[in-house]
Amino acid sequence: MNNFVNDIADINKDFAQWYTDVVLKTEMVDYGPVKGTMVIRPYGYAIWELIQDYFNKEFKKCGVKNAYFPMFIPESFLKREAEHVEGFAPEVAVVTYAGGQELSEKLVVRPTSETIIGEMFSKWIKSYRDLPYKINQWCNVVRWEKTTRPFLRTSEFLWQEGHTVQASADDAEKDALEMLKIYSNGLRNLLAIPTLTGRKTENEKFAGAVATYSMEAVMKDGKCLQSGTTHNLGQNFSRASNIKFLNKDEKLDYAFTSSWGVSTRLIGALVMVHGDERGLRLPPHIAPIQVVIIPIASKKEGVVEKCNEVLDALKKAGIRAELDNSNNTPGWKFNEYEMKGVPLRLEIGPRDIENGVAVAVRRDTHEKLNLNLAKIDKEVNKTLEEIQENMLLQAESNLKSAIVETDDFNTLVEEVNKGKVALAYHCGDSACETEIKNKTTIKTRVIESYSTAHKCIFCGKKSKYRVYFGKQY
Amino acid sequence: MNNFVNDIADINKDFAQWYTDVVLKTEMVDYGPVKGTMVIRPYGYAIWELIQDYFNKEFKKCGVKNAYFPMFIPESFLKREAEHVEGFAPEVAVVTYAGGQELSEKLVVRPTSETIIGEMFSKWIKSYRDLPYKINQWCNVVRWEKTTRPFLRTSEFLWQEGHTVQASADDAEKDALEMLKIYSNGLRNLLAIPTLTGRKTENEKFAGAVATYSMEAVMKDGKCLQSGTTHNLGQNFSRASNIKFLNKDEKLDYAFTSSWGVSTRLIGALVMVHGDERGLRLPPHIAPIQVVIIPIASKKEGVVEKCNEVLDALKKAGIRAELDNSNNTPGWKFNEYEMKGVPLRLEIGPRDIENGVAVAVRRDTHEKLNLNLAKIDKEVNKTLEEIQENMLLQAESNLKSAIVETDDFNTLVEEVNKGKVALAYHCGDSACETEIKNKTTIKTRVIESYSTAHKCIFCGKKSKYRVYFGKQY
Repeated sequence: MNNFVNDIADINKDFAQWYTDVVLKTEMVDYGPVKGTMVIRPYGYAIWELIQDYFNKEFKKCGVKNAYFPMFIPESFLKREAEHVEGFAPEVAVVTYAGGQELSEKLVVRPTSETIIGEMFSKWIKSYRDLPYKINQWCNVVRWEKTTRPFLRTSEFLWQEGHTVQASADDAEKDALEMLKIYSNGLRNLLAIPTLTGRKTENEKFAGAVATYSMEAVMKDGKCLQSGTTHNLGQNFSRASNIKFLNKDEKLDYAFTSSWGVSTRLIGALVMVHGDERGLRLPPHIAPIQVVIIPIASKKEGVVEKCNEVLDALKKAGIRAELDNSNNTPGWKFNEYEMKGVPLRLEIGPRDIENGVAVAVRRDTHEKLNLNLAKIDKEVNKTLEEIQENMLLQAESNLKSAIVETDDFNTLVEEVNKGKVALAYHCGDSACETEIKNKTTIKTRVIESYSTAHKCIFCGKKSKYRVYFGKQY
Repeated sequence: MNNFVNDIADINKDFAQWYTDVVLKTEMVDYGPVKGTMVIRPYGYAIWELIQDYFNKEFKKCGVKNAYFPMFIPESFLKREAEHVEGFAPEVAVVTYAGGQELSEKLVVRPTSETIIGEMFSKWIKSYRDLPYKINQWCNVVRWEKTTRPFLRTSEFLWQEGHTVQASADDAEKDALEMLKIYSNGLRNLLAIPTLTGRKTENEKFAGAVATYSMEAVMKDGKCLQSGTTHNLGQNFSRASNIKFLNKDEKLDYAFTSSWGVSTRLIGALVMVHGDERGLRLPPHIAPIQVVIIPIASKKEGVVEKCNEVLDALKKAGIRAELDNSNNTPGWKFNEYEMKGVPLRLEIGPRDIENGVAVAVRRDTHEKLNLNLAKIDKEVNKTLEEIQENMLLQAESNLKSAIVETDDFNTLVEEVNKGKVALAYHCGDSACETEIKNKTTIKTRVIESYSTAHKCIFCGKKSKYRVYFGKQY
C-alpha cells in the first residue's frame, strides 16, 4: 500500500503533519488570513451541523432553551470573578474603538460568557419559581493563542455554551454531571469516540469553578484531547454577578450555576481518533457523505441510469448519498473518497447490473461486499450500522491499549513519553501535581476513582485518588 | 377593550413605545450591558431558529453549502474596494490588541464578509470547472450604530450571508434575482409578510455592488423596513480580492460574484407587521408556540388528564403545542398568551370534555370555535392553516392601503409624512434623488417598473422609472 497516494504524510512517522495534510486536503478547513484563525469549509462545517443537530435534541430533552448573548463584554465584567480574570485575561482580544471613536470602556470579545450571561440572569431571576433556568447558545468565541492548529486550538472557534441556574448546590452539581453524560454518550453514539470521563483535579479545573468535569479522548498518537467540559460553578459566579433569588423560605440567597461546552475541536478529535494512512475515516452517523456511488464503465448503456436510481433509493431512505459522475477515472475517485473518509463506496458497472448487485467497499475494513440492488437501501443501512459499531469497537480497543497502569514514576514518564496514558495513584496535593508538571510537562487528565489505600506515585504520601496522566493537545 | 391590559403602550398613539414594550414584555429580547447590543431571549431565538430551518432548506435546493469564515478581517482588506470601505469604515469595531499585545495590523470585526470570503475564493477558485461556487454562513456581524432598537438596528446582530461565484455577469445577476425570490417567498410563506421587492436606485445600493435588490416590508405605522437584500457585485469584489479563473477559452478572467443576506431584523418586521393593541400576533408557521392549552377548573377530575392527552395528540401531529397548568388564573393566562401572539388557544374544562369539544380562540380574529376532541389534531391543523392564510390576507390589505400613487411632489411629502408609501415617477438622476432626500429625509425604497413615458415628480424631466418613496427604519 502506498502511504503517499494522496500526498498525505505518513501517519506513523509524522502524526502532526499527517493531521494537517488530512484536514487541509479533504477541504474540511483552511487557514484564515489572520494568523491563528481558520475557515471551516463546507465538508468540515457539515460535520459541525450534524453535531449541532444531535446535541440540540439532547439539550432540549433536559429543558434547555437556545438564546443569544452579545459577544462584547465590558472589561470590568471579566474582572468580577478573581480566578476567572486571571485565567482568561492573557488571551482576550480587545476592542478599543468603534464607530470612529475611542470607547470609554474597552470591550473584551467573549472567551466564554459566564460574566455577561450572569449579568442577565441577575436581572431575570427573582424567585425559586424561576428556577431551574437552563439556557444554551451556539456562537463564536475568541481566545488568542500563541500556537494554533486547525480545529484543535485557534484564535476564534465555534462552540456551544450552556448555562444553568439552580436553587441548590446539589442541583448545580447534578446539571454538570448530567451534561457530562450527554456529552460522553454523544461522542460514543455519534462520533464513535470513547472517552475517559471524570473530574478534573483542583489544579486543572476551569477558572472560577467549584468542580470541572471533562471528557478526554485519546488520539492515535496517545495524546489526550480535552473534548468537552462541564463546570459546577457553585455560587462563585452568582456572587460575582449578583444572581440572587428568593428561596422557599422567603430568604434571599445566591443562586447556584453550572456551565458546559463542546466546540469545533470535536472535529479534530474525529480526525485523530479514526484516521489512517489513507486519510479520514468517518463513522457513518457523522459522515456528511455516508455513501458515494461510482459508476464503472459509465459510458455503457444503463449504468448512469442505474446509479441515479440507487441514489434516489438511498436518499429516500434518509441516507446521505452522493453520485460522482465526473470525468475522473474510477481509480482517482476511489482514492479521493477514501481520503475524505466516506464510510461506504458503491461501484456499479454493467456486469454488476446484470448480476443485480452493487460492489460495496467498506472504508473501515476495506472489505468488499456484494449488495443486492433490489433492496439496496436496507442493505446499505445495515452495512452503515455495522461500520459505525465496528469503528467504535476499534476506537475502544485503541483507547484500552493506550492506557498503562503503573505505580512507578519513572515508568509513568517513560510510558507517557512513548505515547501512552498512565493511570496512577496521586496524593491530590496541588503542589505535588505542579511539581510533576514542571518537571515533566505531564499533566493530570481526569480522576478515575477515589482511594486512600495506596501511595502517591510521586511523593509517596497517602493516595487520594487514581488519576490519568498524559500529554495533551 | 382595555389597551393597557398588559402595560403595553397604545399602538395607535405611540407605535415606537408599543414596539419596545412588546418585544421586551414578551421576553423576545432584552438590552445587553453594552449600549446598542441586544440579548435574544429564548422566545425570540426560537423564531430565528425557524427562519434558519426554512432558509437552510431553500438555499440547499440551489446548491448552496454552509461554511464559516473568521470574524476578524485585516483592516487592509476592507480598504481594497473603494466604495465598500467608504460605506463601512464609519461603523466598524476595531480590535487593536489581543493576547496581551498590541497588534501590528488592526483587525476589523466583520460588518459583512465580502472581503475575507473574497480572499479565500481567490485561493480556492482556479477554473470554470470550479464554478458556480455557492456558500453561506450564519453568523454575527457588528455595525456600530448611534441610534439602536432591538432587532431593527443593533451594534451586533445575527444574519446569514450568502456568497456565490459565477463565470459570467448574467449568472451573477441570476443568483441575485433567484435569492430575492427565495427571500420574498419565505417572507410570504413563513412570516405572512408581503413585500415590495425590486431593484434599489444607484443612490441606495450596497457599497461596492453593481446592483442591489431589496424586499421592503411596510410596518403598521407606514414606515418601510428593508428586510433582506441581494447584490450583484459584478467583478468589483473579484478585482479587489483577485478572484481569477481560467474560462472555457483558456483565458484568465475575473469572476462574477453575488452576495445576499437576511438578519434578525426579520423578527422586528414580524412584530410591526402583525402586532395589535394586545401585543404580538404570530403567524402559525413561525410561532414557537402554535397552540396553548389552558385547563378550566383544573382541579376537577379528568381535566388535566384530558389536557395532557390533547397535548400529546398535537405534538404527535408535529404541532408546537404547550400546556399551561400553572397556578395562575385562566384570565391571566388568556392575556399572557395573547400578548405573546400564540395563534390558537384551547380551553378545556369539565363541560367541554362532556361535550367532546375544546373551545378554541383564534388570536387573529378573536373568533371562538368548538373543535372536536376526537379529531383534535386535524381540526387544529386546519385552523392553524386558516389563521396563516388570513394573516397574510390582512397584511396584504394593509400593504395595499399604505401605498399612494401620486404625480404631485407636495402630495408625496404630505402622504409619506402621514405614514404612507408613495409610488411616483422619477428621472433616475442621482443628484435629483439626493436633493429630495436632503430636503425631506424621504428616500426611495425600490424601483417598481421602468417607463420613460412620464415626468419626474421632482425635477419634471423625463422619467426613468416608477419608484416607491417612504420613511424607513
